[in-house]
Amino acid sequence: MPHPFSFRLVATDGAARAGEMTTPHGVVHTPVFMPVGTQAAVKGVHHDDVRAAGTEMLLANTYHLMLRPSAERIAELGGLHAFMRWPNPILTDSGGFQVMSLAPLRKITEQGVTFRSHIDGALVELTPERAVEVQGLLGSDIAMQLDECVKLPAEPRAMEQSMNLSLRWAERCKRAFTGAAAGRALFGIVQGGDRPELRAQSVQALTAMSFDGYAIGGLAVGEPQSVMLEVVSETAAALPAERPRYLMGVGTPADLLEAIARGIDMFDCVLPTRNGRHGLAFTRFGPINIKNARHADDERPLDAESRCPAARDFSRAYLHHLFRSGEALGGTLLSLVNLFYYQDLMAGARAAISAGRFADYAAAVKEQWNARRDVDAAGA
Amino acid sequence: MPHPFSFRLVATDGAARAGEMTTPHGVVHTPVFMPVGTQAAVKGVHHDDVRAAGTEMLLANTYHLMLRPSAERIAELGGLHAFMRWPNPILTDSGGFQVMSLAPLRKITEQGVTFRSHIDGALVELTPERAVEVQGLLGSDIAMQLDECVKLPAEPRAMEQSMNLSLRWAERCKRAFTGAAAGRALFGIVQGGDRPELRAQSVQALTAMSFDGYAIGGLAVGEPQSVMLEVVSETAAALPAERPRYLMGVGTPADLLEAIARGIDMFDCVLPTRNGRHGLAFTRFGPINIKNARHADDERPLDAESRCPAARDFSRAYLHHLFRSGEALGGTLLSLVNLFYYQDLMAGARAAISAGRFADYAAAVKEQWNARRDVDAAGA
Repeated sequence: MPHPFSFRLVATDGAARAGEMTTPHGVVHTPVFMPVGTQAAVKGVHHDDVRAAGTEMLLANTYHLMLRPSAERIAELGGLHAFMRWPNPILTDSGGFQVMSLAPLRKITEQGVTFRSHIDGALVELTPERAVEVQGLLGSDIAMQLDECVKLPAEPRAMEQSMNLSLRWAERCKRAFTGAAAGRALFGIVQGGDRPELRAQSVQALTAMSFDGYAIGGLAVGEPQSVMLEVVSETAAALPAERPRYLMGVGTPADLLEAIARGIDMFDCVLPTRNGRHGLAFTRFGPINIKNARHADDERPLDAESRCPAARDFSRAYLHHLFRSGEALGGTLLSLVNLFYYQDLMAGARAAISAGRFADYAAAVKEQWNARRDVDAAGA
Repeated sequence: MPHPFSFRLVATDGAARAGEMTTPHGVVHTPVFMPVGTQAAVKGVHHDDVRAAGTEMLLANTYHLMLRPSAERIAELGGLHAFMRWPNPILTDSGGFQVMSLAPLRKITEQGVTFRSHIDGALVELTPERAVEVQGLLGSDIAMQLDECVKLPAEPRAMEQSMNLSLRWAERCKRAFTGAAAGRALFGIVQGGDRPELRAQSVQALTAMSFDGYAIGGLAVGEPQSVMLEVVSETAAALPAERPRYLMGVGTPADLLEAIARGIDMFDCVLPTRNGRHGLAFTRFGPINIKNARHADDERPLDAESRCPAARDFSRAYLHHLFRSGEALGGTLLSLVNLFYYQDLMAGARAAISAGRFADYAAAVKEQWNARRDVDAAGA
């Protein structure tokens, strides 16, 4: 008999929260950053290294996995944890976001979304019920409702329609979800674009349905950080304190600190690995673009005091050489540097919240980013 | 004061030999297989994993490194071992082979070879003296003479001219080489195509010059395996027993066993990593093409008894999925599987030679390759 999914707050510090989520595959300490394993692999990085970086929970993408190798095949192979050999917690998205961004010829109706696979052109239907079914076949610890996400800026009317459709889909997902008996969780997703009144309606309707946790969707889709943080502040404040809050697809290290300060518990983002593959390292001293010519004869490591071996053991000159030479090892090493950095940032945040000094922690981290004399990248 | 370079035979078994080479960066047990770190990195694999596979010595390519980041820059950064953080022995080739195969507009004269860099089009001259100088700047444990290598089949006259030019270049390399005081070694390269009398002349002239070791070059360039092995047999038998013998650019697991049986001590080849990136795994049961559809739902690992975690821990279905999905992790994992396989094959060969049962070992290995029922690849 698995533990039921649960979340408990360990400490609060202003709006910031430290907590523990219990899932069928173990405990996750929040605030948590989930690296993205889109196709059941974190790009370019071995699972053991993802784990060594301090990762407690991964995100995997339903859209990709339902198309290849298919949810049914993964279920036959024992579920996603066994398939990819990741024994720790996994959250799956609903597939909706990728349908909107990747699939050609998508068509949204009340019933769901129909699209053509970007792999073989097959016609696929994804309904709220099917999204829940697929995530059940994958066996993720946390499943997400199917939602519709509009790109910002958008017309108020479009945002409202989309928010309401997402609410109706939330209800259908909730009815279809049978994973609670296995300790699995289902999260609802707050939509409403940048309109406070729409977000408030969405929160109210979703909390009335009572989900295991609540995500804030439809952000980090092109709007300024200030707009995002305003929505986060208001939405987080309106969500029930006793359930985890997840800001989807966010973000830069600065975004994480700001969102934690506003009461967010969970994050996922491709930035550590995507930027790592492109030569951008996140460090205590701010971002470093290793492809910059001035690193070509720099014998210093990225950060001699990092917990990450790649940040300590290799010179900037060598990492620069790997990128200049097109060696994939460069992307792997910088992805690792970034995963360690993100996870250490989160561990620091958790400790600071528990000690009641999160504001000081965030200020000190930002001061160190800004104080470095060898800035070579404007940001993420 | 570093140890002088030395080689001693530990055991012989027919023509097969087990030995120990002492280099400035440690002892190497022969027969040895050297993975190729073309640009100061073994493609797609972390150094620590290359080492964990049982690798005692790497090969790095002079041609690539002299063009980028340049031998002078690597020397300023402490030499190749420090630059790439590989504290164990390294052999560098002379650059000649890559000039012939990669550089546009190359022109060979008595003086050396002039070519345009494939990176930026710069005009570069590589003479025997410069090849030795560059390898000194890199600080490799074993340097190779500059030679000319003709593609087979070739006109006898072309093979003879090329062999004689390589001999004159060998002499100039020997004169220019000053690494002995630092314990570094210089190897001569036997040329002569597929003509026994040319190979014999080359051996005689080179041994008269007395190199620290002797390579057999100009093979594995398109000729049938039988031709290659005949040249290897005759050449190895003519070389002095007390010096290491290196068969350049070879080869498949079967090539290695055959060449060891004929008295070869050293090998390098890109096959384990190149084939790994393309989805071909070398295993005790022969090669496995993981991209083949029949692996899509195969829960078995590649080899449950392998010393390689990637061969034990992941299902064939998952590895298949990684390749089908274009995830670079697949290539990394199969490269590792192959490096472990090659190094275990060599460790087995060394043990068998020391026990006087190499022929039985080679026969048993080949029998296991052939006995498997699920053959799905014709070879390497």
